[in-house]
Amino acid sequence: MCGVFGAYSQDGSPVLEDIYLGLCALQHRGQLSAGAAWTDGGSVHIKKGLGLVHEALCQSELAAIPAHTAIGHVRYATAGGTRPENCQPLGANYAQGPVAIAHNGNLTNARALSSYLANRGAIFQTTCDSETIIQLMAHQPGTVQLEALESALARVQGAYSLAVLLEDCLIAARDPWGFRPLVVGRRGETYFVASESCALDIIGAELIRDVEPGEILVIDRRGMISRKMRRKARRHFKCAFEYVYFARPDSVIDGRSVYRARKELGATLARHGGLTKDAVVAGMPDSGTLAALGLAEEAGMDFEAGVVRNRYVGRTFIQPTQRVREAGVKIKLNPQTGIFKGKEAVVVDDSLVRGTTAGRIVSMIRESGAAKVHMRIASPPVRYPCYYGIDTPSSEELIAAQTTIAELCEKIDADSLEYIGCDELCRAIGLPRGELCTACFDGDYMEEEEEDNLLEV
Amino acid sequence: MCGVFGAYSQDGSPVLEDIYLGLCALQHRGQLSAGAAWTDGGSVHIKKGLGLVHEALCQSELAAIPAHTAIGHVRYATAGGTRPENCQPLGANYAQGPVAIAHNGNLTNARALSSYLANRGAIFQTTCDSETIIQLMAHQPGTVQLEALESALARVQGAYSLAVLLEDCLIAARDPWGFRPLVVGRRGETYFVASESCALDIIGAELIRDVEPGEILVIDRRGMISRKMRRKARRHFKCAFEYVYFARPDSVIDGRSVYRARKELGATLARHGGLTKDAVVAGMPDSGTLAALGLAEEAGMDFEAGVVRNRYVGRTFIQPTQRVREAGVKIKLNPQTGIFKGKEAVVVDDSLVRGTTAGRIVSMIRESGAAKVHMRIASPPVRYPCYYGIDTPSSEELIAAQTTIAELCEKIDADSLEYIGCDELCRAIGLPRGELCTACFDGDYMEEEEEDNLLEV
Amino acid sequence: MCGVFGAYSQDGSPVLEDIYLGLCALQHRGQLSAGAAWTDGGSVHIKKGLGLVHEALCQSELAAIPAHTAIGHVRYATAGGTRPENCQPLGANYAQGPVAIAHNGNLTNARALSSYLANRGAIFQTTCDSETIIQLMAHQPGTVQLEALESALARVQGAYSLAVLLEDCLIAARDPWGFRPLVVGRRGETYFVASESCALDIIGAELIRDVEPGEILVIDRRGMISRKMRRKARRHFKCAFEYVYFARPDSVIDGRSVYRARKELGATLARHGGLTKDAVVAGMPDSGTLAALGLAEEAGMDFEAGVVRNRYVGRTFIQPTQRVREAGVKIKLNPQTGIFKGKEAVVVDDSLVRGTTAGRIVSMIRESGAAKVHMRIASPPVRYPCYYGIDTPSSEELIAAQTTIAELCEKIDADSLEYIGCDELCRAIGLPRGELCTACFDGDYMEEEEEDNLLEV
Amino acid sequence: MCGVFGAYSQDGSPVLEDIYLGLCALQHRGQLSAGAAWTDGGSVHIKKGLGLVHEALCQSELAAIPAHTAIGHVRYATAGGTRPENCQPLGANYAQGPVAIAHNGNLTNARALSSYLANRGAIFQTTCDSETIIQLMAHQPGTVQLEALESALARVQGAYSLAVLLEDCLIAARDPWGFRPLVVGRRGETYFVASESCALDIIGAELIRDVEPGEILVIDRRGMISRKMRRKARRHFKCAFEYVYFARPDSVIDGRSVYRARKELGATLARHGGLTKDAVVAGMPDSGTLAALGLAEEAGMDFEAGVVRNRYVGRTFIQPTQRVREAGVKIKLNPQTGIFKGKEAVVVDDSLVRGTTAGRIVSMIRESGAAKVHMRIASPPVRYPCYYGIDTPSSEELIAAQTTIAELCEKIDADSLEYIGCDELCRAIGLPRGELCTACFDGDYMEEEEEDNLLEV
Repeated sequence: MCGVFGAYSQDGSPVLEDIYLGLCALQHRGQLSAGAAWTDGGSVHIKKGLGLVHEALCQSELAAIPAHTAIGHVRYATAGGTRPENCQPLGANYAQGPVAIAHNGNLTNARALSSYLANRGAIFQTTCDSETIIQLMAHQPGTVQLEALESALARVQGAYSLAVLLEDCLIAARDPWGFRPLVVGRRGETYFVASESCALDIIGAELIRDVEPGEILVIDRRGMISRKMRRKARRHFKCAFEYVYFARPDSVIDGRSVYRARKELGATLARHGGLTKDAVVAGMPDSGTLAALGLAEEAGMDFEAGVVRNRYVGRTFIQPTQRVREAGVKIKLNPQTGIFKGKEAVVVDDSLVRGTTAGRIVSMIRESGAAKVHMRIASPPVRYPCYYGIDTPSSEELIAAQTTIAELCEKIDADSLEYIGCDELCRAIGLPRGELCTACFDGDYMEEEEEDNLLEV
Repeated sequence: MCGVFGAYSQDGSPVLEDIYLGLCALQHRGQLSAGAAWTDGGSVHIKKGLGLVHEALCQSELAAIPAHTAIGHVRYATAGGTRPENCQPLGANYAQGPVAIAHNGNLTNARALSSYLANRGAIFQTTCDSETIIQLMAHQPGTVQLEALESALARVQGAYSLAVLLEDCLIAARDPWGFRPLVVGRRGETYFVASESCALDIIGAELIRDVEPGEILVIDRRGMISRKMRRKARRHFKCAFEYVYFARPDSVIDGRSVYRARKELGATLARHGGLTKDAVVAGMPDSGTLAALGLAEEAGMDFEAGVVRNRYVGRTFIQPTQRVREAGVKIKLNPQTGIFKGKEAVVVDDSLVRGTTAGRIVSMIRESGAAKVHMRIASPPVRYPCYYGIDTPSSEELIAAQTTIAELCEKIDADSLEYIGCDELCRAIGLPRGELCTACFDGDYMEEEEEDNLLEV
Repeated sequence: MCGVFGAYSQDGSPVLEDIYLGLCALQHRGQLSAGAAWTDGGSVHIKKGLGLVHEALCQSELAAIPAHTAIGHVRYATAGGTRPENCQPLGANYAQGPVAIAHNGNLTNARALSSYLANRGAIFQTTCDSETIIQLMAHQPGTVQLEALESALARVQGAYSLAVLLEDCLIAARDPWGFRPLVVGRRGETYFVASESCALDIIGAELIRDVEPGEILVIDRRGMISRKMRRKARRHFKCAFEYVYFARPDSVIDGRSVYRARKELGATLARHGGLTKDAVVAGMPDSGTLAALGLAEEAGMDFEAGVVRNRYVGRTFIQPTQRVREAGVKIKLNPQTGIFKGKEAVVVDDSLVRGTTAGRIVSMIRESGAAKVHMRIASPPVRYPCYYGIDTPSSEELIAAQTTIAELCEKIDADSLEYIGCDELCRAIGLPRGELCTACFDGDYMEEEEEDNLLEV
Repeated sequence: MCGVFGAYSQDGSPVLEDIYLGLCALQHRGQLSAGAAWTDGGSVHIKKGLGLVHEALCQSELAAIPAHTAIGHVRYATAGGTRPENCQPLGANYAQGPVAIAHNGNLTNARALSSYLANRGAIFQTTCDSETIIQLMAHQPGTVQLEALESALARVQGAYSLAVLLEDCLIAARDPWGFRPLVVGRRGETYFVASESCALDIIGAELIRDVEPGEILVIDRRGMISRKMRRKARRHFKCAFEYVYFARPDSVIDGRSVYRARKELGATLARHGGLTKDAVVAGMPDSGTLAALGLAEEAGMDFEAGVVRNRYVGRTFIQPTQRVREAGVKIKLNPQTGIFKGKEAVVVDDSLVRGTTAGRIVSMIRESGAAKVHMRIASPPVRYPCYYGIDTPSSEELIAAQTTIAELCEKIDADSLEYIGCDELCRAIGLPRGELCTACFDGDYMEEEEEDNLLEV
């Protein structure tokens, strides 16, 4: 999970403050690090650091830089660790010129490519899979940069939505399977690429369209040119979890509104029935709110903002010491006094990964006087790891992979527990099942090509 | 607007991590500075700094301090400026021992008391009105501290909810008029005082009761003793704005749930009528959400989370540069695509101070396709400044003091605009009008005593 | 040990950069903290911090402040600890106006005065003896500041060379005994006061004269006026150790050149005889260099820069870990290879406090091949503590107070060891013994007045 | 100008605190940045930063690292700028393992090698010439590291004294011409390499010998093995300026004591005659002190520490503002009062580059009452730039390249000015002229090989 953003201004106006604002709008996609890259006098310049956008970057410093094209990146915590050199964008100045890259996704053949390159003298500066793309470009002596990029992308496998910066050129590229979202927008003479449309809204740009899976968009002085990647996909694998959890509700991804998808997921749960009309419906803040609203509306039940999320509480603010653990879940969530007293409560969340929080909220609402507590999950059980850029726990930690729904209901001490099915999920999103990646729910992974074919390209 | 918190552990267990957590729960009451004070070996020690609680204080450092009684404070931006020495708690070690003070409110006779003290040799270290209380204590040579505090409070006028720390003693005091809230709670052997009950929830303490107006609670090894202040009030002046905006919805203040009060304010607006059933109701995030919910429920209309608030956008994250102003309101708020298309929209906010944001949101929702946009305000028009601790703009800036409601409706370009009345406000809160301070709405201020009487005490 | 500096510009030109430069020249008098104070709009402003001048203060920030009068201070490590609030200058804004004070010396009746003041309501902000002067001023309600200062100084006892800043007035005051140096100088329309004349040189000012013991110099728009203090001294007690060690060699104190005094102290040692002509003379860098030069010149022997002091080694640079202790004295001092081989060495130091370094240097020079090593000390044995501002160890740690010279010679393993006598010291300095304080050598302390007389003044 | 240091402990004891201490002793060779590198688990780790050793590195952090072999570096300000990535050591983990390098000197064919490497896919991370050595190593796929290093060194040209770190191996290498010094020492089971012997003294290690020009010393578990480089030099070019100015006086370089060399340079000046016996001799602190001492001793004249250097004044402490420039030379240097009055003064400095300081000191001493002021320079006039690692100004700024000695004497307003000749310089050092590089004095540069030969190796 990461967010990428890029801008190219044809009338030469500076874009780095837009990059800053766009990254702020994508902050929910990555809070571990942030960075921006631009070129100046044939060299790539990069500012990046750990933390939120405003901690890693300085808005006024960026605003003072006259670059008319630039890219930016926000990064989520992943297993790879928090070494500052792994922050993105990555950049290099090599024989053919400057290049910088911002990558959302995960390359599944990075290890094989790295050893191939190391045997040809490559010195890797990071442990990021994204660096292999730059090294593949540099190891094509005499090849112009755009061609070197296309040839490099023909050799990588997995998920990548990229914003790439060359000397006077911005490139957006989305892998042939379309795992991660990527859109292109425009405000006057300036083009933007972004992981989500909400980043276009913040800067007053208009959404033109999604970058297509397998498409390379080249934006420069002359305009926007679309090219097809050499590798083709048998079918698309657009991530369903973006609609369930990751994306911001005001974004529109591959033509589908995330807000509507979430409310429809809640409505789907309502149609499962089994709930009394005078129950109180509450969402887990903030991830379950929209599904709870959809459920309440469809079922004609009362929706309440029944649980307060302490805004200034969380990893940034409070360390998980012994005392904090004793104080328990109330650190983060606090039920409204009197809302649930003597009533049946329906608590809706977007998904259920480890089950710890669900168990705590059920007991908390029960303590606040609820007669019954029903748990509803607005997605199928997560049973398989994701290899395409999402930081899921291993199967051992995925509660749904280890236990039946009935056992889980007992474990979290709910009076009932329901999920939705994979087909229901796809219907709620509004895309054919054959275009969505639901591997984390059903284990239906993309088939990968033989490594040797790729190295020989 | 500030938040105070205090703890006294009778079994000697350390309390400073609780102070940290309590301040986190009160963070919404003040984000300008934070601090904590404790005593050690007869001296008062203070840690404080600018910024949010986790920026000004270090949780693990505090957790390592063995003090069994302590106080804390969060401070809102006020006209007095941001000089670090004005951060609270304030403390001093004087002839009778150590004292520290955390103050929510505003003393209206601070200036007169300061010059009285300066003529007796007092050297002021801050420009805080709260320091006069400490100086009044020190200028009673030979008087034991508790008596000196009582005598000092008999001479100050205005709003004060205080947590005061003496050598081995915690004191909670609330002015005779009861302007600002103050509660006392307990967890096992440890007593807590806090501006709001939500700060008791976070540490797993139980709310015992509100500190009464004119009450001084002395908490020490022997337990909790209640004393009456020498000054008496003719009637109470509990701040109505706490229910409208300041307090957290999961707090209970003077026996009334803030959550219920806000929903009831929305329901009151619904009862005004004049809205079509198939309109879409949305709240200004986050301040108008509960009133919007109450309105929709009472009127049987659809509630939608129709406007997204960019969480990572705001004063901390983005500077208001020219580019940001051009990008406009979308920086902070973004309407959900398609929600309002072809419908009448009802937008609810808690109050309307300058009118700028309201105008922007109306135009934004209109642009997103709404047929009509109705604005509803869940409180009366704010027409008068507050002298008791709330940082209201001057009358010239208060839009409601300068214009009629009809003109204002036109100015923000809404199809209709409604407020509620003062009596409705009090009814929704559930307290008699004669106990609430509604001065900012109706100019009905408390009468102050003659200054000379106070200096002679 | 501290350094004070002050400036008053009659033509209104800004002086704070001069304060910065002057403090740099006085840096040898105190490296624990530095600070500067000035007035603006009737308020005193202070910048101060721990560390060297350039760490605690920012030259360009100071240079941008338009104040035409200001004072500064550098502070040495003393027993009082390193609490930031104890850094000087100290300042206050009280009923009569702003005041700031920079103090070199030590008040011997500070404790009695503090409790006298505390019983009159004073709240002390520091544990600095210097604060009593400000509190004494504030506790004279209605008295103009200059008169309040004079009256305050009539009640303090001990050593004080002060630079005091009032609203539009700079005051230099030196205690009636003259313990610590204080000079006044001038450059064009600007007057300066400084602990040593070297601070006048650095800013191109000319030394006018020493401030006399018991003199208060008032410098303002009208010029410089000299006043006599109310308290009188029976005789002067000018610190002899300033000439031996503290002062910079290019300073002139009470009319005597420090450089000449140090060379003369070395020459005095030469006249003691007992050394062979072809011995090699070396000084302990840097404190013994000048005396070594004087000895070599008087005796007609070869002076060598025989020991290198590692400039970038010392408390700031290297922590005294186990490994560092093992590496031993060479961390700080390294003898020149081959200089001492087969020769008699004469090592000269200014004084000998604990004896540890002397022992190490003797063994180091012996290891580098010297036939004999003679130690010479250019002052009498230090046997008594100083109560007037110098941070001497307690008698138990003063090696000369615990042992005979013969035993000490054996302990440091030298072939001979010689000191000079008190009379020789005074002769070398060139001032009558009856004007110098030699208490740390001979225990001849100033007699103090009864405390009661002072409190009643 | 830089300093390098390395350690290998055969008994596995940690060495990074020794690296810290060694770098402190070499601090005079570079104050722009400092760094240390070690290996752990097959990876190279580097800590480095701008500033002095204690600013860039943390002694206690280093002391806690268990590495038994490591290298360190201090860097002087050079034209290449202060980009943090250019700080040394440089390191990389490539296919054959980890490598780190600390380099003193300057490669004269770095540009040609860089473009050769870039055409083979190399991505350069720095603008340091030293990186070419690492890239040359990585671009020999399948070659073991030591062999790759030897082959890389066969292709570089210019000055290099290197400490190189491989997985479990420390390598010291000095170019075939011997431009920069490099020594090897030992303490128990631990070997050290250092730019100067003073860095061995500080850690209590014994100097074994100089690394020979063209020698590669490989130190590992089995001990120390000497290898010869493939490239041979026609003759040595040991830098004469190390003896004149750069090296610390307590170091011994290529068997010659720097201290003795400097005194002998002064004695040489004395033998030129032309000075009166009763003149006062003073050195420019600190660079001219030893030559002044040698001159005074040889001539039988009085040596005085006639000029004080303000220790806490200089680039770090004081910014060169307008006010500072007005205050003039006294900021840094202050003559002793009365020393020169009515006498002839002989001022000795090690060299004279731009002439500004010399002019100021002459006028300062004249103002302090000297009858005549004679300037003596303990080296020949610097007339040519250095291409081998010393940061000399361009010829236009070299005063001696632009003017005759007589004109120069007049310009600095001295009564006489004398230099020494190149032959005298070599005699004073004690090495044959054919072994020393005196190019900056006489333009006699080393002949370089054809580039093509090197690239083909």
